[in-house]
Amino acid sequence: MEVKIVKTTSPKAKPDMATVPFGTYFSDHMFMMDYTTDKGWYDPRIIPYGPLEIEPCATIIQYATEVFEGLKAYRTPEGKIQMFRPDENAKRIKNSAERMALPQMDVDMMVDFMRQYVEFEADWVPSDPGTSLYLRPFIYATDPCLSLHPIHEAHFCIIACPVGNYFPDGLKPVPILIEKDDVRAVRGGTGYAKCGGNYAGAMRAGEKAEKNGFSQVLWIDGVERKYVEEAGGMNVMFKINGDVVTPQLNGSVLPGITRKSSLEIVKDWGMNAIERLITVEELIEAAQSGALEEAWMVGTAAVVCPIGELAYDNQRYVINGGTIGEVTQKLYDDLTAIQWGRVPDRYGWNLVVK
Amino acid sequence: MEVKIVKTTSPKAKPDMATVPFGTYFSDHMFMMDYTTDKGWYDPRIIPYGPLEIEPCATIIQYATEVFEGLKAYRTPEGKIQMFRPDENAKRIKNSAERMALPQMDVDMMVDFMRQYVEFEADWVPSDPGTSLYLRPFIYATDPCLSLHPIHEAHFCIIACPVGNYFPDGLKPVPILIEKDDVRAVRGGTGYAKCGGNYAGAMRAGEKAEKNGFSQVLWIDGVERKYVEEAGGMNVMFKINGDVVTPQLNGSVLPGITRKSSLEIVKDWGMNAIERLITVEELIEAAQSGALEEAWMVGTAAVVCPIGELAYDNQRYVINGGTIGEVTQKLYDDLTAIQWGRVPDRYGWNLVVK
Repeated sequence: MEVKIVKTTSPKAKPDMATVPFGTYFSDHMFMMDYTTDKGWYDPRIIPYGPLEIEPCATIIQYATEVFEGLKAYRTPEGKIQMFRPDENAKRIKNSAERMALPQMDVDMMVDFMRQYVEFEADWVPSDPGTSLYLRPFIYATDPCLSLHPIHEAHFCIIACPVGNYFPDGLKPVPILIEKDDVRAVRGGTGYAKCGGNYAGAMRAGEKAEKNGFSQVLWIDGVERKYVEEAGGMNVMFKINGDVVTPQLNGSVLPGITRKSSLEIVKDWGMNAIERLITVEELIEAAQSGALEEAWMVGTAAVVCPIGELAYDNQRYVINGGTIGEVTQKLYDDLTAIQWGRVPDRYGWNLVVK
Repeated sequence: MEVKIVKTTSPKAKPDMATVPFGTYFSDHMFMMDYTTDKGWYDPRIIPYGPLEIEPCATIIQYATEVFEGLKAYRTPEGKIQMFRPDENAKRIKNSAERMALPQMDVDMMVDFMRQYVEFEADWVPSDPGTSLYLRPFIYATDPCLSLHPIHEAHFCIIACPVGNYFPDGLKPVPILIEKDDVRAVRGGTGYAKCGGNYAGAMRAGEKAEKNGFSQVLWIDGVERKYVEEAGGMNVMFKINGDVVTPQLNGSVLPGITRKSSLEIVKDWGMNAIERLITVEELIEAAQSGALEEAWMVGTAAVVCPIGELAYDNQRYVINGGTIGEVTQKLYDDLTAIQWGRVPDRYGWNLVVK
């Protein structure tokens, strides 16, 4: 399908990459495509970035009928542009859409549209160290009807914002609050889907954590209320007695792409990388005994973020003396070297755009 | 606060109340009000109904930051207009907003805005038997930022659509599917809040039920997977051995206003009205033994809807021979008589608009 182009007549200045806040300054254009049950997906186009016109009764407004993705395009030292594992994002949004009964899009077609869009916005991919162009693809349904019914009308959109170096002064361990009251997700629910509703329900706990000086929450499961699941906006990993351990994908944990990539990398280093149930109790005991050697979060925005302290039940547990651990640092270095193309792409993860 | 008025210059024709589908045909105007953390709620206005302009990066689009309500304005035999328990809706949306970390609105202020809006749209309140004007108030946040952060910018909107008689041929019992796979809500989650995310996650199960000939699903709890919680879009009630029984409000069940009103009414009749845990097993056994004498759903749209059949695990259980029960019919008659002002308002539930 040919992508129609409508160029902006008022291009914006590029932001100062040293100060631009995450997710606020958008590129000149967005990708847009429509869907109806009769036509399927049609009319792909790149158009000037601007507001959406949405009926107040539309399902996206009333019933949160939306799924999204997050990925990045990176500028290599040679000036090339590449995206990190976009096929994984295209697969995940398809699974998310299936869970939410939204129209799905062919994986190859979506990857191709992402590629064309990034190619078109190439001058928005910054080149300063640690910077990238964050892409936010999303599918939203707009049936203009308040009754609960199958979806007939939807759109696929991609917007993009240049993002600065998440860690301009190097990796800095953050404190995390284990959330005891609010629950993010439950098996059978929407936890594994990247849908708006999961994030809306997480706002209150996130706000509380932030007010109390924490970077974000660590969720525990909604059934037994004892297993660690994921952090507020990232997956979580631990080094316990020399092994890398992460909560297994049980249906309520988001199947993170940085999580998946990290597991592959540490296995290649010869470490055990174990996906299993992890109780809060085990974690606290391991923190107290020193068996918990490192803790970190993984996600697209920060890639890897060390955890220096866990708080639970008004007790605080410092990890690795509050400093970044060896595996955490090495994983960050290795992953970011692949993403920014500073080392050969030994896994074939990058899609070179141009 | 004075409500500014901008009248439409192109008023629409009123729909044919015998054929208008639910939630598709909207009145000429909508109510709108803005919020920022600096200003609080400001600029209430009644303006022509029309599309919202929303940034693609806005939190309502990306993270489903929204809560809503549903209530009705009724035309009495004398031609007056009244709303049914709008204070209860205003209280509930406040609780929903608290759960979702959205800005809350004073209950009296919201009721007054609903009243003013209905008064302005008075000629949209239909007078045919069984018809009403459905109101959809909602609060949505529009912070133009992809990072997860506390909300700074929101709006309160009311839209309205005239709705026809839900049961033009009298109450007809419907078949309901007890959903075993998907889960709607879990304690600690957002189940008690009326937020978009709860409905987005319910679409897949609802679609499956509809395809298999069921009116909607009956949800079971997400923790033990054995307690009945609520139906797809309504609360649920049973008559078991002469008592009216309904799932207790445990945090994952929506605290329905028709539910609450129904309990008060049947208690006044001298019946036991019991809020407690009800297992699927108990329900099936009661259906088999005949102890389950009646089953029905309650909600704003249909008021009362009899259940003629429950399906679970590929078995079907007919209730009361598939016909409407005595209590179900009496409750429908009593509630609707109060709502449409055909009997004195013995509970003081109605707010007379004009």
